[in-house]
Amino acid sequence: MYAESLLENRTIDAPAEVEHDVDQPVENEATQQVERDLRRVPIHPDHWYPLAWSHEVKKGRAHGVHFAGDPIVLVRTETGKLFALEDRCAHRQVPLHAGVVEGESLRCCYHGWTYDCSGKCIDVPYLGKERLPNGVRAYPSREQGGLIFVFPGDPALADSRPVPELASVTDPKYKTRRLGREVKCHYSFMHENLMDMNHQFLHRRQMGNMRARSLGRRRGEDFVEVDYVFTREAGKQPIGESLVFGGGKKNETGTGGKDVMTVRTGYPYQTLQIRTASGTLVMDLWIAYVPLDAAQRTNRTFGVLSIRRPKVPFVMDLAWPLLVWFTERIFQEDRDIVEMEQEAHDKQGGDRNNEVFPVIRELRSLLRERGGRTVIPIYKA
Amino acid sequence: MYAESLLENRTIDAPAEVEHDVDQPVENEATQQVERDLRRVPIHPDHWYPLAWSHEVKKGRAHGVHFAGDPIVLVRTETGKLFALEDRCAHRQVPLHAGVVEGESLRCCYHGWTYDCSGKCIDVPYLGKERLPNGVRAYPSREQGGLIFVFPGDPALADSRPVPELASVTDPKYKTRRLGREVKCHYSFMHENLMDMNHQFLHRRQMGNMRARSLGRRRGEDFVEVDYVFTREAGKQPIGESLVFGGGKKNETGTGGKDVMTVRTGYPYQTLQIRTASGTLVMDLWIAYVPLDAAQRTNRTFGVLSIRRPKVPFVMDLAWPLLVWFTERIFQEDRDIVEMEQEAHDKQGGDRNNEVFPVIRELRSLLRERGGRTVIPIYKA
Amino acid sequence: MYAESLLENRTIDAPAEVEHDVDQPVENEATQQVERDLRRVPIHPDHWYPLAWSHEVKKGRAHGVHFAGDPIVLVRTETGKLFALEDRCAHRQVPLHAGVVEGESLRCCYHGWTYDCSGKCIDVPYLGKERLPNGVRAYPSREQGGLIFVFPGDPALADSRPVPELASVTDPKYKTRRLGREVKCHYSFMHENLMDMNHQFLHRRQMGNMRARSLGRRRGEDFVEVDYVFTREAGKQPIGESLVFGGGKKNETGTGGKDVMTVRTGYPYQTLQIRTASGTLVMDLWIAYVPLDAAQRTNRTFGVLSIRRPKVPFVMDLAWPLLVWFTERIFQEDRDIVEMEQEAHDKQGGDRNNEVFPVIRELRSLLRERGGRTVIPIYKA
Repeated sequence: MYAESLLENRTIDAPAEVEHDVDQPVENEATQQVERDLRRVPIHPDHWYPLAWSHEVKKGRAHGVHFAGDPIVLVRTETGKLFALEDRCAHRQVPLHAGVVEGESLRCCYHGWTYDCSGKCIDVPYLGKERLPNGVRAYPSREQGGLIFVFPGDPALADSRPVPELASVTDPKYKTRRLGREVKCHYSFMHENLMDMNHQFLHRRQMGNMRARSLGRRRGEDFVEVDYVFTREAGKQPIGESLVFGGGKKNETGTGGKDVMTVRTGYPYQTLQIRTASGTLVMDLWIAYVPLDAAQRTNRTFGVLSIRRPKVPFVMDLAWPLLVWFTERIFQEDRDIVEMEQEAHDKQGGDRNNEVFPVIRELRSLLRERGGRTVIPIYKA
Repeated sequence: MYAESLLENRTIDAPAEVEHDVDQPVENEATQQVERDLRRVPIHPDHWYPLAWSHEVKKGRAHGVHFAGDPIVLVRTETGKLFALEDRCAHRQVPLHAGVVEGESLRCCYHGWTYDCSGKCIDVPYLGKERLPNGVRAYPSREQGGLIFVFPGDPALADSRPVPELASVTDPKYKTRRLGREVKCHYSFMHENLMDMNHQFLHRRQMGNMRARSLGRRRGEDFVEVDYVFTREAGKQPIGESLVFGGGKKNETGTGGKDVMTVRTGYPYQTLQIRTASGTLVMDLWIAYVPLDAAQRTNRTFGVLSIRRPKVPFVMDLAWPLLVWFTERIFQEDRDIVEMEQEAHDKQGGDRNNEVFPVIRELRSLLRERGGRTVIPIYKA
Repeated sequence: MYAESLLENRTIDAPAEVEHDVDQPVENEATQQVERDLRRVPIHPDHWYPLAWSHEVKKGRAHGVHFAGDPIVLVRTETGKLFALEDRCAHRQVPLHAGVVEGESLRCCYHGWTYDCSGKCIDVPYLGKERLPNGVRAYPSREQGGLIFVFPGDPALADSRPVPELASVTDPKYKTRRLGREVKCHYSFMHENLMDMNHQFLHRRQMGNMRARSLGRRRGEDFVEVDYVFTREAGKQPIGESLVFGGGKKNETGTGGKDVMTVRTGYPYQTLQIRTASGTLVMDLWIAYVPLDAAQRTNRTFGVLSIRRPKVPFVMDLAWPLLVWFTERIFQEDRDIVEMEQEAHDKQGGDRNNEVFPVIRELRSLLRERGGRTVIPIYKA
């Protein structure tokens, strides 16, 4: 029903740019990097970042997370209100997430200093109310699509920046799977991995021999996107893949057209969408890579993958465990390889990538331009 | 019989200082710290430090320990004599504790170089006696109260400095429990933790809701001490606590007076004593925090806790396992929290404590003044 | 038949140098080391180093190894040809050993870039053949005596440097055992350990009380060697040792002569040979210590131990498991002690060895002179 069958059902206006894409002279990227090693560009804080799944923060509980080395505590009060504070007591700097939610406030576990949703200290049990010390920093927070978003940058900008909408999540025509893990690499490797579909060879055991063809790219101030079509070169389509891309048997559209996959980095998020020749969105992945440590050498991945339900809906439910297995295996392969890239970077002490694919060079340029202005200090391996 | 009942049985001359203590203006401690981050003040070496329990060093055996990064070997000879040497062979620097005790000397395990109790090299099997190389450093050592004390500083000062006396240990009216663990923090966090009884909130699961009131503090050249009384605010007294503080049932002294707890840092040691209204010492804790590593980010705690036996002595023996469990749980909570403090300090790269309790500010000043004169280099987390 | 019996069967011309060796004034080695801490001298790369056992690199497979921090991939093609490349794809620096051997070439697992035996990039699936990027470095490689040798230095010198011959390995009169482990120390500690036979005390549990006597040393431009004879001072000969050195029962040569053990460092390798009074080689050990990491704080040991078969050959086969156990135990003791030496060096931040044995001082001087010209940066413990 889905992807691959559709990949074959669409007339492709293979643009001249395809060949151009891969055949233009490979200029040395070093010139661009003299000023800025991409792996040392911090993610820009003035965006909404998912820091937890909604279910991780239960009523009346505090939950500790990190953004780029900053500890943040997410609190859901007894009435269900959500707030986010710096995860350090103003007194002795211990994590507030070890504390106790009392009504609409959070009490530190150690000496009982208490903070409200704005971070103000409202009680020190052994101190007069008139002498209360300063409190802690509060972060703007929002909840959407099963994710808790925090704005770690300048709070004055929070309202003007959009919280990501995850449209397919609430659309009953789609079934959604959430995926996420910690991955030990800079977020930029994640973007490059997903956007360069020439890495299908990595998944040959899961996917067989698939060949990607880029149909051309588009670049805006804050995004890069690229379209691909795929051809199976050898091997049988694995059952896992047929659940994502659709199976040959259900192919009712012939081989004249192909599904088109669009991968887009709309800073700082990434999406991957597959549309049929007739324009139906059959797969919709939204994903963010949130740096955890100050060196931004580890990210937590929050992915929301929505698959359009087939006409016989229970078919997908039956097959769902296989899809889970299939996506887990692929994600594991991607994780292993990007961690190897990070390890090589740390050992080499700099970025020696020799990129030949113009899409990825455009992406790298975007990530450099939109990233934070500071430089991550040298990482000591 | 003991603490809490007694806490309630004593008339308190609640001194004006109590309120004064907590209500005086909270000055910014930064001024004091410009010169000296407390967490980078090394412990002063010119004191007797316990480095092992007596039972850890068996006859005819060598035992390796550390003081602030210096490896030290404790040797008990076949005749029972104890001595302490630098734990590195003068030849190839391997640990002497891996060697063999031969009579009254210690032979290195590698090439057999042999040292006497003064550290002098008295044999190299393949070298003439007239050509023996220099030996290793010896440390003054003493044994008292089941502890092996070593003087790591200037040996010329050893005799003039008192070895701690643990009086209750040998008094049959008391039963003694030894407690100790490695804790991953600077020794100063340990002193502050025990002396600030406002941290009872941390032990709410073990102790219920206890409220401490400070009765005032005293400061001398080498000590700070503070008296407390306690009030139970809510909850039932746990059985573990009644073993330490005494149970309500055994309360024979009424509620007019209260037990008084005195916590004292007499540099570099700490004590916690509970006395009844009539002056009887019911609980007597002596404790030392010995830095293990050069960065002094880990300490080994040697605590000796003596509890006065009740009139029906077997009652305590039956209850002893509960007391062990109770103290272990509380010690575990304290250990967790001070390790979080250390972790925060390492991440923040400096001391951002915002202390409001005058007792602790006095203590911090004492620890700075009495500590070693050098500065611990920045700790690389 | 072998060692110890023979040790006793040989007339020794105990040279005057023996006493001279151990009794000459112990000069302070510091003068020599002002310029060069031996533990920071890198091994010289212009030699053939074993990087794997032959059986580790199977047909059609790639195998990743390291030399002094440099990742190297060993490839055995389907036709059995062996080659060695830098173990990083020229594209994104991921390890090539995770790739796929295709015919006589190696394809990277990620985007499928492909390299031939010279390191040339011969295919990028999504790029025109005329635009192929640069490839990766190739290393000269050889296979001999069950070992794969690589020349990590200047390739122009490879042919002029001899690949070690392991003569006893192919001689049916000997039975050979291969031994090797990773040891966490600088290679120089390994050389010193084996060459200083005064460390028999370390193996007292395995060997009993053996006393070594040095018969004198020889020094050439690229070697140091020393002869020893042994005397049993106390205890019974262990069964394991009798397999290596020969048992008393088989002693047919009387006690007039002794076996002679010669330990030689012929840079960068080491050998230990035991010969009878009549000159028969009864034990022949060849060993190399290959630094794995850039700091050269870990080495992989490749040892080839050949023992001359007794006249009743099956005797040795029956006893072989005992010999394996015996050599493993001894090697474990040596490994433990050299790792302690390295640990002491790292903590002390420099070489404080106080060597009194002239043979070892000569060896240290050789290792300094023949080592690489650079200095290993300070190791951060």
